[in-house]
Amino acid sequence: MKSAIEQLYRTTRAQSESLCAPLNDEDCTLQAADFVSPPKWHLAHTSWFFETFLLKPFMPGYCSPDTRYEVLFNSYYNGIGEQFPRPQRGLLSRPTMAQVLDYRRHVDSAMVSLLTTSDHPERAAIMTRTELGVEHERQHQELFFTDIKYSLAVNPLLPTYLAAPWTEQAELATTQWHSYAAGLVEIGFDGTGFCFDNELPRHKAFVGSFELANRLVSNSEYQQFVDDNGYQRPELWLSDGWSAVTTRGWQAPQYWLEQDGEALEYTLHGVQPRQADTPVCHVSGYEADAYARWAGARLPTEQEWELAAQEAQTATTHHANTSGIDSGHYHPRAARHRSGLQQLFSECWQWTQSAYGPYPGFSPSPGAIGEYNGKFMSNQWVLRGGSCVSKAEQLRPTYRNFFYPQDRWQFSGIRLARNLSE
Amino acid sequence: MKSAIEQLYRTTRAQSESLCAPLNDEDCTLQAADFVSPPKWHLAHTSWFFETFLLKPFMPGYCSPDTRYEVLFNSYYNGIGEQFPRPQRGLLSRPTMAQVLDYRRHVDSAMVSLLTTSDHPERAAIMTRTELGVEHERQHQELFFTDIKYSLAVNPLLPTYLAAPWTEQAELATTQWHSYAAGLVEIGFDGTGFCFDNELPRHKAFVGSFELANRLVSNSEYQQFVDDNGYQRPELWLSDGWSAVTTRGWQAPQYWLEQDGEALEYTLHGVQPRQADTPVCHVSGYEADAYARWAGARLPTEQEWELAAQEAQTATTHHANTSGIDSGHYHPRAARHRSGLQQLFSECWQWTQSAYGPYPGFSPSPGAIGEYNGKFMSNQWVLRGGSCVSKAEQLRPTYRNFFYPQDRWQFSGIRLARNLSE
Amino acid sequence: MKSAIEQLYRTTRAQSESLCAPLNDEDCTLQAADFVSPPKWHLAHTSWFFETFLLKPFMPGYCSPDTRYEVLFNSYYNGIGEQFPRPQRGLLSRPTMAQVLDYRRHVDSAMVSLLTTSDHPERAAIMTRTELGVEHERQHQELFFTDIKYSLAVNPLLPTYLAAPWTEQAELATTQWHSYAAGLVEIGFDGTGFCFDNELPRHKAFVGSFELANRLVSNSEYQQFVDDNGYQRPELWLSDGWSAVTTRGWQAPQYWLEQDGEALEYTLHGVQPRQADTPVCHVSGYEADAYARWAGARLPTEQEWELAAQEAQTATTHHANTSGIDSGHYHPRAARHRSGLQQLFSECWQWTQSAYGPYPGFSPSPGAIGEYNGKFMSNQWVLRGGSCVSKAEQLRPTYRNFFYPQDRWQFSGIRLARNLSE
Amino acid sequence: MKSAIEQLYRTTRAQSESLCAPLNDEDCTLQAADFVSPPKWHLAHTSWFFETFLLKPFMPGYCSPDTRYEVLFNSYYNGIGEQFPRPQRGLLSRPTMAQVLDYRRHVDSAMVSLLTTSDHPERAAIMTRTELGVEHERQHQELFFTDIKYSLAVNPLLPTYLAAPWTEQAELATTQWHSYAAGLVEIGFDGTGFCFDNELPRHKAFVGSFELANRLVSNSEYQQFVDDNGYQRPELWLSDGWSAVTTRGWQAPQYWLEQDGEALEYTLHGVQPRQADTPVCHVSGYEADAYARWAGARLPTEQEWELAAQEAQTATTHHANTSGIDSGHYHPRAARHRSGLQQLFSECWQWTQSAYGPYPGFSPSPGAIGEYNGKFMSNQWVLRGGSCVSKAEQLRPTYRNFFYPQDRWQFSGIRLARNLSE
Repeated sequence: MKSAIEQLYRTTRAQSESLCAPLNDEDCTLQAADFVSPPKWHLAHTSWFFETFLLKPFMPGYCSPDTRYEVLFNSYYNGIGEQFPRPQRGLLSRPTMAQVLDYRRHVDSAMVSLLTTSDHPERAAIMTRTELGVEHERQHQELFFTDIKYSLAVNPLLPTYLAAPWTEQAELATTQWHSYAAGLVEIGFDGTGFCFDNELPRHKAFVGSFELANRLVSNSEYQQFVDDNGYQRPELWLSDGWSAVTTRGWQAPQYWLEQDGEALEYTLHGVQPRQADTPVCHVSGYEADAYARWAGARLPTEQEWELAAQEAQTATTHHANTSGIDSGHYHPRAARHRSGLQQLFSECWQWTQSAYGPYPGFSPSPGAIGEYNGKFMSNQWVLRGGSCVSKAEQLRPTYRNFFYPQDRWQFSGIRLARNLSE
Repeated sequence: MKSAIEQLYRTTRAQSESLCAPLNDEDCTLQAADFVSPPKWHLAHTSWFFETFLLKPFMPGYCSPDTRYEVLFNSYYNGIGEQFPRPQRGLLSRPTMAQVLDYRRHVDSAMVSLLTTSDHPERAAIMTRTELGVEHERQHQELFFTDIKYSLAVNPLLPTYLAAPWTEQAELATTQWHSYAAGLVEIGFDGTGFCFDNELPRHKAFVGSFELANRLVSNSEYQQFVDDNGYQRPELWLSDGWSAVTTRGWQAPQYWLEQDGEALEYTLHGVQPRQADTPVCHVSGYEADAYARWAGARLPTEQEWELAAQEAQTATTHHANTSGIDSGHYHPRAARHRSGLQQLFSECWQWTQSAYGPYPGFSPSPGAIGEYNGKFMSNQWVLRGGSCVSKAEQLRPTYRNFFYPQDRWQFSGIRLARNLSE
Repeated sequence: MKSAIEQLYRTTRAQSESLCAPLNDEDCTLQAADFVSPPKWHLAHTSWFFETFLLKPFMPGYCSPDTRYEVLFNSYYNGIGEQFPRPQRGLLSRPTMAQVLDYRRHVDSAMVSLLTTSDHPERAAIMTRTELGVEHERQHQELFFTDIKYSLAVNPLLPTYLAAPWTEQAELATTQWHSYAAGLVEIGFDGTGFCFDNELPRHKAFVGSFELANRLVSNSEYQQFVDDNGYQRPELWLSDGWSAVTTRGWQAPQYWLEQDGEALEYTLHGVQPRQADTPVCHVSGYEADAYARWAGARLPTEQEWELAAQEAQTATTHHANTSGIDSGHYHPRAARHRSGLQQLFSECWQWTQSAYGPYPGFSPSPGAIGEYNGKFMSNQWVLRGGSCVSKAEQLRPTYRNFFYPQDRWQFSGIRLARNLSE
Repeated sequence: MKSAIEQLYRTTRAQSESLCAPLNDEDCTLQAADFVSPPKWHLAHTSWFFETFLLKPFMPGYCSPDTRYEVLFNSYYNGIGEQFPRPQRGLLSRPTMAQVLDYRRHVDSAMVSLLTTSDHPERAAIMTRTELGVEHERQHQELFFTDIKYSLAVNPLLPTYLAAPWTEQAELATTQWHSYAAGLVEIGFDGTGFCFDNELPRHKAFVGSFELANRLVSNSEYQQFVDDNGYQRPELWLSDGWSAVTTRGWQAPQYWLEQDGEALEYTLHGVQPRQADTPVCHVSGYEADAYARWAGARLPTEQEWELAAQEAQTATTHHANTSGIDSGHYHPRAARHRSGLQQLFSECWQWTQSAYGPYPGFSPSPGAIGEYNGKFMSNQWVLRGGSCVSKAEQLRPTYRNFFYPQDRWQFSGIRLARNLSE
């Protein structure tokens, strides 16, 4: 009988590969920008992670199929050594897709062997790290979607990742504001399961009173911002944001298209009519911030968001069956008429106004694995929640996602907050 | 009899010009990088500020000597209109230095007339804005020093701004750690005098226990970091910081020189021996952060710094006579043996780990003047304190300075903090 | 019975595809620099050429399998219309390799039908353009080799295109100098077969006396230049060449490798020992020029080269069976002891000192097809001869190849010339 | 009594300084692009030239006022040593203008002493090099004008270098074509006076029959090209030229302005109405080539131009009194009704289609002075004639000027040629 961790390992590994099924080998080597990686590279790198942090340290005699993979598939771990240049990952036609799948077989076989060695002297560390490796691979499953979407969109043929019935959208729920009283709260993870080091330590913070929108900003609402010359009015933007607008020529969210007067959107299910009630998606932090200013609101802080999500109590279990990468629908959906905060974890990541930094007392793990989160704690903004291409089981109120404020290729949207005069 | 505000205005304006006395006209047009401005431009822009925000709105019939100055000397106020490209300020040989001084005469004459119109219906607004204009000009006096230092340093002749007796340094005080208990504190300005909008509103924050070094990190201490291969060890750096190190080839603080084995430093008083006990200066936020990590410490948050400075009670009055731009010594000096926190406001700005953002409930002034601070609240880090080229009267515990973490041309140094286990 | 032109068409088309046989689909989409194209793109573009210049104008009712290919596979013909950006050709995972092969079938079927319509009113034009299309495809067969070599070489795994027995090299022939008397000569094509428009019109030119080396410069000779600090001595280089050396960090020809003290070379047959007697290859025009200066010689003018090649009379027929892409050996070979000029067409293209420009009286063809050669007549240098990856049938003494003097990815080598004092 | 060479030296040196009279010190440090130099730098570099190539080698005990000038004012002579980076010449506020004038005094005094040492053992070399130094300084006098024009034009105030009566233009002469028969001709300098090394050796060339326009293309003619969408039609342009058009956004010659529907031109005499009959000026080689193609003509080769100019016999003496930098009118003037070729040397340099390369048998001078011309023989185009800011005494039919085909800041215009069917 397989252990829970072995089962989790096998399932996760299998799912990563099944995501590539709709693609051909040429697609799997595609890299259209420095910040995205080819599907094949994701498959190899996640294997490298298990090899590097589990098999090499804990399995005597483990032998890699090719010693050069250590450099080729190292993402950013300086503690391990040199890395093949990130912008050139799309130039690795070799190893071929078939060879990378062989590499996965090789690693899987060794990993199962390691996981079933119940008397291994380092068994506890192995369990902990395998769990981290699984969570790591789940994160790369989400990146698989965001990256291939970006790379395919460069092609004028606008290829479809997966044909899917394009469902009718529910009527848009009106915005309701949930209010929260000021007070001293506890922020950070406090449960018994897995969490990343950046969610720790749990600590006190004072949060003033505020209110939060019950749902995400929709396409039609964002369209009003565009129509009101939102992209032409510097007074709505942060200085660096305005610089991004003018330098990059932003006029609308990434993937919005206009064709013969029709409002369209490029999605993983092909080019589709842009639906009014769907949450606006693929906006940068700067756009989210400017929209909020235009709307007489602001972005929430990450503490405000976490506090609200904690109270909502709905978290992952609620949504696990109907959203995320297991749903087969890789595009956000409109909010329904319901009470309570909606769309917390299921549609788009939500930009906060909080710069990504260490919690008071934070200390990363020792060794190369400590590079996982800590060294990125500058210049990025925290996003909270989750998206339609997240692995739902991975999400929780304390989860901190982070990207640069100019990034738009993630499934990132907007939830508004406002001050409450006390 | 002159009013206080008129006196303040006249003194400030005169001082800006006197700073240029050691320079010739060629120096005054110098701009060696996008982020610095020529002395002449500072003189013109500060006049533009009074013209734009006081004379044009409040003085009927005011006429600018040249309508094209509105564009030429607008720094970044989109609400006013177009701006001459910042990287080309050094290409403005015209208006000449003499013409810019005429421009100042013209503005001064009108300003004095406005300030002495005691029955002006907008007298209150005029007072407030004049005060802001004076504070603005004081900030540009500091930038005058940092910018001309940078621009002169590009010249292989390494010109001296001002010859000065290079005083012997005191013996370095040993580091003492001041500890602070956790608690809910008030952050932000609460006095009766002037403050900038970004110091408001005063608000509650929870600060955990911590300890703070009584003085700044010295050259000799920083040298140990260099000698310990600090610039070659990625594990000490934030990811974006390491990228800056490798891209820009940093090996030491800006202005450190080595010549025939002798440790030197370029200063506004020419090339000088690099003194062991002087605070290390002209380091980026990334370097400050890496040094702190190497030293087993961390940078303080801006709340921690403010809390400590409030308690120290020493603030501006204490230092007004002996430091800053009125001292004639434009280089940091070593700490002396004394009790209490030293070097808070007088030597180098101190990097904090806090990203520059809005305080809870922050709202900028309406109109173009609201662009003064608010729109820069992304990607920059807060520095606290003041430096040897600051106008001492301008400093206070709540003052928030901000620069990009890669910036090194300010007089920026390092004060360490540490967690306290409770 | 098939006509000669139909036979030529079929053979050429089949050969282009057979060149891809050793590659997988990922390789076929590879583009490691702006100036190279993926194998798949070459296959598609050469089909586009026949479609655009023959099928669309001459075959009523011809229908392209996808109208978007007109833009996707247009290389540089502004007269036809918009072009997909050249640097992004490697991002076209779609159409897939299979779809491109279908595209070729579609074009081939139509072309054969067109070629067998013996009573077509435009039959003469069809014959002429088909011949041009074949020559065009032969040029792309050579580019296939140079481009895939460049793209594979970026991969640290240094993949082999085709395993091949690495033959022993003959002993290096000593250099002999052939001398030519001054006189008025005829330059340009004058035969009855095919030539490109840039070889016309034949015209008079005065050529002074000179002498020409009987063979190409070898690896061992070039190594002496390297050892004599050739890459560190600006006085040997043209100003723009020296700038290329310092900017790009050139230290040796492209593809030279050093490993554990062994001199190696990356070839299409994998990494191989660098053989002393093989012609040096993959040097830029600047390197060729600097080497010549160092050696007390110079590069020939294109008129000198043509004059010598005309006299040598050996031209294509002599070499057709033993060299070029039909030989299966895709790397230059050493010169043998023989009388007469050697290695004119078979090993490396030979840089001349002549800037590529129009012959007196040159006029390009009307319409988009006139963009084939004429518009490139600035900033490039003429190379003469041919290489081990040329289609031998395509070469002749009047053939003018041209590349930028900084280009190194072609099989380009060095033949020296010297002045003769009269 | 002063010798002729001493007199020439003194006059030339004095004229360089007098050209700066209308400028202030800020203007004299101005550098608005990498390819222009500040007036002050020209004054210093021309002194450096005499110091480096005459005083240091031939005057024992000569002492430079500052040894660091050797690097600061070296333009591009690698044989002498390191050079201060060209793009930063505008950052040299020190040495000041006054110090540079002192430097000139210092060099002048030593030079006069050297020139009057009539028994110097190297007297012949001194005479030759002094002549070269004078010619060199004359070239820099022309660059003074082209560079300061470029740098002042960046300033929105569009400063006037020198107020001047703007004379009425003569009526435009109609174009006449002068025809020349084919034949073997002699090209290159053959006189007794001074010439540059790149005009040698005189050699035979075969020139086919051609015809040449008697005057330069005018503003009104060029306007027709613009109006006929010349800048929007790629088929008129060389490939690299079209790339320059789209990358740089060219829509008209440099310095053409449009204001309230009025056609204007920025000149050294301020903004002026753009006169229809004045030669078009400040066009790149690409624009000249495209215009010629549009006009059904072509650019002449440098051999054709030289042949025609030799025959015209008019050369320098004819124009010495009425044009060039001694005229005080620093803008081209319209052609008058006259027989013979006009505007050969007096208005605008004339682009040829000839790439700048070595004449057969060319060899540069030994040592660093050999870098004067030879190392630039790639990627540039030859211009022939002279301009309204040339020193007329310096011009002759064999003089070869050279710039990159994208360069527009010289006074460069267009003279058309055509083939003659024999």
